[in-house]
Amino acid sequence: MKNAASFIGLDVGGTSMKAGVVTDEGQTLSAVSLPTEAGRGQAFGLERMCETIRLAISEAGLRTDQIAAIGVATPGTMDIPAGLILDPPNLHPWQNVPVRQYVQDAFQTPTAFQNDANAAAFGEYWIGAGKDAHSMVLYTLGTGVGGGIIIGDLVVEGEHSHGAELGHMKIEITNPRQCGCGRWGCLEAYASATAVVKRAREALARDGENSTLGPLLGKEAELTAKAIFAAAAAGDRLAQQIVGETAFYLAVGATNLMHTIDPDMVVFGGGMIAAGESFLQQIRQHVHQLAFPVPAERTQIRYAQLGSDAGFIGAAGCARQLLRAIR
Amino acid sequence: MKNAASFIGLDVGGTSMKAGVVTDEGQTLSAVSLPTEAGRGQAFGLERMCETIRLAISEAGLRTDQIAAIGVATPGTMDIPAGLILDPPNLHPWQNVPVRQYVQDAFQTPTAFQNDANAAAFGEYWIGAGKDAHSMVLYTLGTGVGGGIIIGDLVVEGEHSHGAELGHMKIEITNPRQCGCGRWGCLEAYASATAVVKRAREALARDGENSTLGPLLGKEAELTAKAIFAAAAAGDRLAQQIVGETAFYLAVGATNLMHTIDPDMVVFGGGMIAAGESFLQQIRQHVHQLAFPVPAERTQIRYAQLGSDAGFIGAAGCARQLLRAIR
Repeated sequence: MKNAASFIGLDVGGTSMKAGVVTDEGQTLSAVSLPTEAGRGQAFGLERMCETIRLAISEAGLRTDQIAAIGVATPGTMDIPAGLILDPPNLHPWQNVPVRQYVQDAFQTPTAFQNDANAAAFGEYWIGAGKDAHSMVLYTLGTGVGGGIIIGDLVVEGEHSHGAELGHMKIEITNPRQCGCGRWGCLEAYASATAVVKRAREALARDGENSTLGPLLGKEAELTAKAIFAAAAAGDRLAQQIVGETAFYLAVGATNLMHTIDPDMVVFGGGMIAAGESFLQQIRQHVHQLAFPVPAERTQIRYAQLGSDAGFIGAAGCARQLLRAIR
Repeated sequence: MKNAASFIGLDVGGTSMKAGVVTDEGQTLSAVSLPTEAGRGQAFGLERMCETIRLAISEAGLRTDQIAAIGVATPGTMDIPAGLILDPPNLHPWQNVPVRQYVQDAFQTPTAFQNDANAAAFGEYWIGAGKDAHSMVLYTLGTGVGGGIIIGDLVVEGEHSHGAELGHMKIEITNPRQCGCGRWGCLEAYASATAVVKRAREALARDGENSTLGPLLGKEAELTAKAIFAAAAAGDRLAQQIVGETAFYLAVGATNLMHTIDPDMVVFGGGMIAAGESFLQQIRQHVHQLAFPVPAERTQIRYAQLGSDAGFIGAAGCARQLLRAIR
């Protein structure tokens, strides 16, 4: 009989894929990473997934037959119940990739499949920021805004694998910004790192003489969300305004989920949380103004704790859940 | 042993309360109504609930000991797990009313307690518009905009009894209308019957000479959402614009839930659905523009089927669910 205590999680990203062995108690025994090299095609990609999994197993000092179940998380449009990636923008030119079946056949081990943001949410829920919560919403703040919703062990993946596309909730209808998805007024068009840079660029063009960011205006590579948050921390007024508005937009996103799911906790993860505690505090203050008194008072607003490991840990958590369901 | 086949649902409203006996298969055996008379106080109100329940039982030709479980749905701020109404705006001057305990003690029968909009959603899910759905979101369109979310038998009531307050999702941040709740930019401030009248009033004041609604502008009682929808159906351009915008706002609400819950079905209920099929068709067309292609294509957008019986039927459904959980 296989050892039930160890699971593999694999988190496939556009640039790299990360895998690790995680125990039944949520302890990470290994964490490895290999480049995705999506451009080499999906057959290569599927084999690279297996290679990353094997590497994580050997790194943990285990044999394949000691892994009780595997979880794979991927980005892109997908059919979660079917275990398929359909047409992933970040994994060009892959199409209709039977990820779950391939991995399950390769390792002859039960394999779970999940959207990467949902998996990250499940990781935080299992052993991260949300480990004492019954329900939790995660916003991931990066180039885009992703999301995951967990209610008492239920990952809200939706009936058409579009659950928790929280960056694409509309928060503006009369004068909406256009989103990277082509639609209008999405939260992502206001609060992603890309949107932070775009808004700063606009503000600098209008009124940049007195900002320390002014000299960066023409420099594509240097005017980053990170630089803007750093300038705000150093006292730059224009940067502080951009950061303050970003906190407001994220508070609107949090409030909308508090008035929908009403979770124990709203968690923010992703690169932008490097902005630190004062940014989180601004989000909390806006939530207090925006939400109904009871959820405003009681809903915890926190940062994620697992960093970029959340995806593979959550994928391992999904593997663990799968094993419990089939046993 | 009690007959497991019959349940009582009670739906307490600001004006009247409605109760009925519903079988295990969802067949309604009786439906009765008594005035709430909230002003006579909560002790009177609790007794009136019991009276309405007894009336529904006798109307069905049953005895109390033939009822397997009772479900009570109420409006207002509440603590659902505790079975309490806290501070209900529509049931002045009630405060901290131990509804579930009182009814359970009075009938010595297991009693479920739920928010009225959640109960209506569960009714539609159980035997109404959503009876073939695995998950469903209900928007109720009346003086306000209410909501309910059901995912595979789970009523998303939230951790602080604020789940599915869908009228208070923010859809506008830069130029928001004020909502009846005192906050800004809520869906309800755009799409409730009250908001429809308010928007029509504004449009008429700006540009009402050619509208058939013009003569109603000064008449409080006659410029109703119903009159506006009727004028639109009769070809009035200004009324058609108001109705068209309302369809757009509701489509934004539907889309936001499609990108959050991603349900099988979004259902609209409440008085405003008397507007008929063309209004629903306008909502569907906007959803097609606003949502991601897959949910836009596959999510069913429908009208509710149970009318004002949805609340007590859903409350009976919650009673049935309670009995299954405790058995």
